[in-house]
Amino acid sequence: MPAAAFGADERAGVYRAIETRRDVRNEFLPDALPAALVRRLLEAAHHAPSVGFMQPWNFILLRERERREAVHRLFSHANDEAAAMFGDERGRAYRALKLEGILAAPLNICVTCDRTRGGRVVLGKTHNPEMDLYSTVCAVQNLWLAARAEGVGVGWVSIYHADELKALLNVPDHVAIVAYLCVGYVDQLYARPELAEKGWRERLPLDELIFEEGWPEGGRETAVTPDE
Amino acid sequence: MPAAAFGADERAGVYRAIETRRDVRNEFLPDALPAALVRRLLEAAHHAPSVGFMQPWNFILLRERERREAVHRLFSHANDEAAAMFGDERGRAYRALKLEGILAAPLNICVTCDRTRGGRVVLGKTHNPEMDLYSTVCAVQNLWLAARAEGVGVGWVSIYHADELKALLNVPDHVAIVAYLCVGYVDQLYARPELAEKGWRERLPLDELIFEEGWPEGGRETAVTPDE
Repeated sequence: MPAAAFGADERAGVYRAIETRRDVRNEFLPDALPAALVRRLLEAAHHAPSVGFMQPWNFILLRERERREAVHRLFSHANDEAAAMFGDERGRAYRALKLEGILAAPLNICVTCDRTRGGRVVLGKTHNPEMDLYSTVCAVQNLWLAARAEGVGVGWVSIYHADELKALLNVPDHVAIVAYLCVGYVDQLYARPELAEKGWRERLPLDELIFEEGWPEGGRETAVTPDE
Repeated sequence: MPAAAFGADERAGVYRAIETRRDVRNEFLPDALPAALVRRLLEAAHHAPSVGFMQPWNFILLRERERREAVHRLFSHANDEAAAMFGDERGRAYRALKLEGILAAPLNICVTCDRTRGGRVVLGKTHNPEMDLYSTVCAVQNLWLAARAEGVGVGWVSIYHADELKALLNVPDHVAIVAYLCVGYVDQLYARPELAEKGWRERLPLDELIFEEGWPEGGRETAVTPDE
């Protein structure tokens, strides 16, 4: 098929999804998502690139309140541990942030990566075994951008002990949890990333992140922005 | 800002980019990419989600022929090793596939992840330390989809020894290489993923990859499709 550039509107849609996608934490509407819409999001995820075309992902959909409450307990426990890792002032700021919408969002999606799919030797994964995990992340990002175009918000929860969540969801040993997503309609999005809006961290200047032909001497110092 | 769904054309653009994005290996045109276009692609990458808004990525742009030839030597060596890992028949099929466009594409982009950016404790990364790598993969996928909308092809090369490529590009120890991308204009794209077109592997039925409320007993067997 022709590889030509998209027309102006379709191209604008791609950039708009990329630029206005937000990590939604707390602002989900309770309305259930239509099945056809959820299917479109999962199809988008399933069209991600995957190393050796192994398509290592599965999607566990969680809607039952009790299940999500059990996940929320795992999060809360881990989040208390996380808050304690920051210094006093930063720890207070951390606790003031709402970091997940597990209960507020009507749909949670656990995205997993089957490390054994495709057999013992997978094309493209011979030298970089983490490529299957990266493929699964591409599926998450596809779903996230499609959701933005649908007026649906997505939040990625990463604060939990993986072994606890795997046990709760009956995920086998050879399967890794890559992402736990909260999904639901939203009314409003932050104009900038929430952590920038709330003064936690600013966007870095892109120019400082681009190098030509190789990593420069002294390039390390340019780009590092330690907090503490 | 309002989170409403996009209009039909903009939404179609998002799904079209997702569905027609291909991993381009060998079909690059030699034409140089305009600087403004490359900038748009990198801005798209830079607007990826990142854990704790740490934005751990850097982009090393490689255009010089000699540099790309050096990278190509690393690839060729690793690819010979990879071919030997397959059985005889599969190994022959593997060798017939063209797996990279390092020299054909006028631009290569090495996308890295600074594991130390943001300091000792990063919000959201306390319990899942690989989240910074996953953020960087989201940047790659953003770039890939934006490129599709621009009529630009991208191929992700994963067959190399990371330590060799890091040494060649002067990448510091605390920085991981997440992706090595070949980028250039293309005329035509495969209608389906190249590895499906060439009979290497087929797309899995999405229905088999979706579970409700948890991983089912026996779910392992459903989804695994070993080759050998």
